[in-house]
Amino acid sequence: MDTLKIFCPATIANVSCGFDVLGVALDAVGDEMVVHKRTKKGISITKLEGQELPTETHLNVAGVAGLALLEQSDYQGGFDIEIYKKIKAGSGIGSSAASSAGAVWTMNELLGRPFSMAKLVEFAMEGERLASGVAHADNVAPALFGGFTLVRSYNPLDIIEIPFPSQLFATVIHPQIEVKTADSRKILKTSISLQDGIKQWGNVGGLIAGLFLEDYALIGRSLQDHIIEPIRSILIPGFDNLKSESLKAGALGCGISGSGPSIFAFSKGLETAQNVGEAMKKIYQNIGVDYDVHVSKINSQGIKILD
Amino acid sequence: MDTLKIFCPATIANVSCGFDVLGVALDAVGDEMVVHKRTKKGISITKLEGQELPTETHLNVAGVAGLALLEQSDYQGGFDIEIYKKIKAGSGIGSSAASSAGAVWTMNELLGRPFSMAKLVEFAMEGERLASGVAHADNVAPALFGGFTLVRSYNPLDIIEIPFPSQLFATVIHPQIEVKTADSRKILKTSISLQDGIKQWGNVGGLIAGLFLEDYALIGRSLQDHIIEPIRSILIPGFDNLKSESLKAGALGCGISGSGPSIFAFSKGLETAQNVGEAMKKIYQNIGVDYDVHVSKINSQGIKILD
Repeated sequence: MDTLKIFCPATIANVSCGFDVLGVALDAVGDEMVVHKRTKKGISITKLEGQELPTETHLNVAGVAGLALLEQSDYQGGFDIEIYKKIKAGSGIGSSAASSAGAVWTMNELLGRPFSMAKLVEFAMEGERLASGVAHADNVAPALFGGFTLVRSYNPLDIIEIPFPSQLFATVIHPQIEVKTADSRKILKTSISLQDGIKQWGNVGGLIAGLFLEDYALIGRSLQDHIIEPIRSILIPGFDNLKSESLKAGALGCGISGSGPSIFAFSKGLETAQNVGEAMKKIYQNIGVDYDVHVSKINSQGIKILD
Repeated sequence: MDTLKIFCPATIANVSCGFDVLGVALDAVGDEMVVHKRTKKGISITKLEGQELPTETHLNVAGVAGLALLEQSDYQGGFDIEIYKKIKAGSGIGSSAASSAGAVWTMNELLGRPFSMAKLVEFAMEGERLASGVAHADNVAPALFGGFTLVRSYNPLDIIEIPFPSQLFATVIHPQIEVKTADSRKILKTSISLQDGIKQWGNVGGLIAGLFLEDYALIGRSLQDHIIEPIRSILIPGFDNLKSESLKAGALGCGISGSGPSIFAFSKGLETAQNVGEAMKKIYQNIGVDYDVHVSKINSQGIKILD
């Protein structure tokens, strides 16, 4: 086996209360990649369709993540990578993470799985460092593991898979405005009030408990962010209105996906998630912002082999 | 039924990472109370043995918590309360919470349970307000519910019961020095760094997941506090040494119980918890501080009726 074609999922990082630690993988939106094992050393991005992104290995997130893996591998050859982007760069649903995670996961498969999943997260984080300046793991971890993941600790890296109830669906709307991850990190404050911190870790505990207990109402009550959302939502047109209309349409909770500008909502059941999507669309139709909407069940598997 | 005798458990609040939100009830240490229903309106503390504490109703935490309940009750009579303190006041294992929770729980039983458990938490919090100036719930909630509890939110009050593995044991050592809850709150900073916040909510998520998954190692890794412990541990003689010796003796994790000065450790299995207790004792024997040690399984039931 020298070639694999894969689907690598879009992901929602932070999930309201879990800034930098929580993430979840989607099923209905993701990139496709084809990775070929070759004898020549190194990584080449031989095709990149769907988005305008650099194809030089050192400037491409899949290239950089792949090189991080190769550096620790005994393999003397290399890989050609084709990337078919369906996730828009800068949308806030883990576009760079999908490419980084997809590259290293597939290379590891083609090499006979010499590396653990935890190591693959580390390699993929190098792609995230290139994309945003920070090697965060809250998108690459769910892209690799599927489902919900908690990054309990970065040093040492400690990823925990969290189960979730089967009727949990996500609605994501991507307003076609540009918010760079690096910029949306810059506007954050470096300190927070202890009182806001207490609320935040109460909600993280509540969300984790709600996912284990399959308690949809508790999941909804816990989807609150008193620290990041009040700041970042300023960059997203119509955020407050869109959030309140989503909740009126039946969403359990609603917040910023990653560093935005995409906005996510969770719902119990596909029908409600679709209704939430319709409510979201109306807001951006009214204020004249172009958008994409995705309604998706939670991806439980992570990266999938196609064909 | 006009009289009930009860056991009300000691509790560990905060549990390292969960400042103001997490708590757990102990089985091997707690107060006893006898509550008599009477026709005369009001609350009287008719006996208080074991500790020097005020018996005037308005100055006694059981009295104040009881009055909060009576105020919302249709009952036109009152209660006589006898308190037999086994938990030392100011020890950091929920002495005031045991009295407050014990009073309102027993009164509710004697009245035929007109109030929900959530309401009882609110009444008992009035006792906590008297004791420390802050109506916190992280001791009274586990005292009432048993096991581990998460205060997801204070406004509105939202208490979540968290399951726990059966071989989890607690060791608590109480150095006989005085640290007032109000003082140990005063030394805390009102703001924290975002980076420390991220570590803290990662660990809260990890601890909740570890308890659900019955993953003792994950529970241990999550028992870290980067915010409160570095400040409060200054008030506790020998803390760093005691913590490292506890971990060497096999504890999963170790931290300050509530606002201190008691220190708790969790272990897998009774034998390890006892070994940890022996290691703790040696530290205070060496530096000449008097102490009490408790080794306890987790209390799963909360308040219990005796005889």
